[in-house]
Amino acid sequence: MNHKMKRAVVLLSGGLDSATVLAIAADQGFECYALSFDYGQRALTELNAAKAVCASVGAKEHRVFSLDLAQFGGSALTDSTIDVPEGETEGVPITYVPARNTIFLSMALAWAEVLHADAIFIGVNAVDYSGYPDCRPEFIKAYEEMANLATRNGVTGEPFKIEIPLIDLTKAEIIQAGHRLGLDYALTVSCYQSDDEGRACGRCDSCRLRAKGFEDAGVPDPTRYIPV
Amino acid sequence: MNHKMKRAVVLLSGGLDSATVLAIAADQGFECYALSFDYGQRALTELNAAKAVCASVGAKEHRVFSLDLAQFGGSALTDSTIDVPEGETEGVPITYVPARNTIFLSMALAWAEVLHADAIFIGVNAVDYSGYPDCRPEFIKAYEEMANLATRNGVTGEPFKIEIPLIDLTKAEIIQAGHRLGLDYALTVSCYQSDDEGRACGRCDSCRLRAKGFEDAGVPDPTRYIPV
Repeated sequence: MNHKMKRAVVLLSGGLDSATVLAIAADQGFECYALSFDYGQRALTELNAAKAVCASVGAKEHRVFSLDLAQFGGSALTDSTIDVPEGETEGVPITYVPARNTIFLSMALAWAEVLHADAIFIGVNAVDYSGYPDCRPEFIKAYEEMANLATRNGVTGEPFKIEIPLIDLTKAEIIQAGHRLGLDYALTVSCYQSDDEGRACGRCDSCRLRAKGFEDAGVPDPTRYIPV
Repeated sequence: MNHKMKRAVVLLSGGLDSATVLAIAADQGFECYALSFDYGQRALTELNAAKAVCASVGAKEHRVFSLDLAQFGGSALTDSTIDVPEGETEGVPITYVPARNTIFLSMALAWAEVLHADAIFIGVNAVDYSGYPDCRPEFIKAYEEMANLATRNGVTGEPFKIEIPLIDLTKAEIIQAGHRLGLDYALTVSCYQSDDEGRACGRCDSCRLRAKGFEDAGVPDPTRYIPV
């Protein structure tokens, strides 16, 4: 028997959500090609986390694509003149990077087409999507339709799937899913302003969501925090 | 009266088609922000052409975004180990760059969102689209729908338009349109293997289409060719 293994490009930031997505894709039997971006974000330690997660989960390949979105401006995550908010915010948050998921999915699509991959996995989540327009399921559905018209696959009739396994999960359910698959969350970084060693601030929105997730999940929180 | 000028991001390669699109957008009263890519393609002289066209047409700003698509491989335009074909080809041509227009539109979308632009102009063409799946009108329509779900605009209700003024024009009609608007086609480069001075080979598919376009349009061809 000579079964061709299913292939997936997995968008991997090094954060908790995308690491869980990689573990899920691998568990579903996909040969995983992880794609990370160095997009001028402050949290470069995320990329080291992504590398560690790939090694731990057993991704077939990990590529880091340089993409300087900072030159378009407009986000606290790429523009060092805008402060990262520490409390709750309303509407589309200032940490939103213009068209970020659209751009990331498009780079994944290029690689997926070359690899003849069957799927692209992305860790978007509708439960605590925090007002980011490009985390909504209707966006993903529209992206998938567009992607199949954009590529050879639309011509040859082997459509891509955009897989969003976290879409309906709470943060606690995400953590429980990764925990069941043996994912080591100590390797992941969620903090918007982690230090060079990958230690988290414990105060930003992302840290608050993460800490509450472990608490709600009943899973011990392995996150390393910067000593106050 | 204090009319805010309409803004457009215009994808500009420095070739004949996109230069015509820029002239059309400017003629329609848009303040034009031209976006070019240095994507590891061989024809870097195209970028110099783009700069010259922007100056000539009067674009408000011109940005060149570095994007090394060559690392994904799979195209004669970015992979120096694949020869550019000189004759006719069947199906999806080898010069197709994976997901190229999807990626270009996504970068344009990011900039358009920051600029609060009203439109993105792209020079895709259904008449001689040569088998590129991402030049079909149904792709553009799907992209526009996706883009409006992807961004703040989808939330605030100020939708983007993806404008494709060349979609139904023959090469001759494109040239006539630009000629009427006073566009200097001597500034543009279409050749896949032009030399450092921007002179064309006269033999590749792109050169053939361009020369025939001028002939059919009854417009003098100002293209500079490499002496044989």
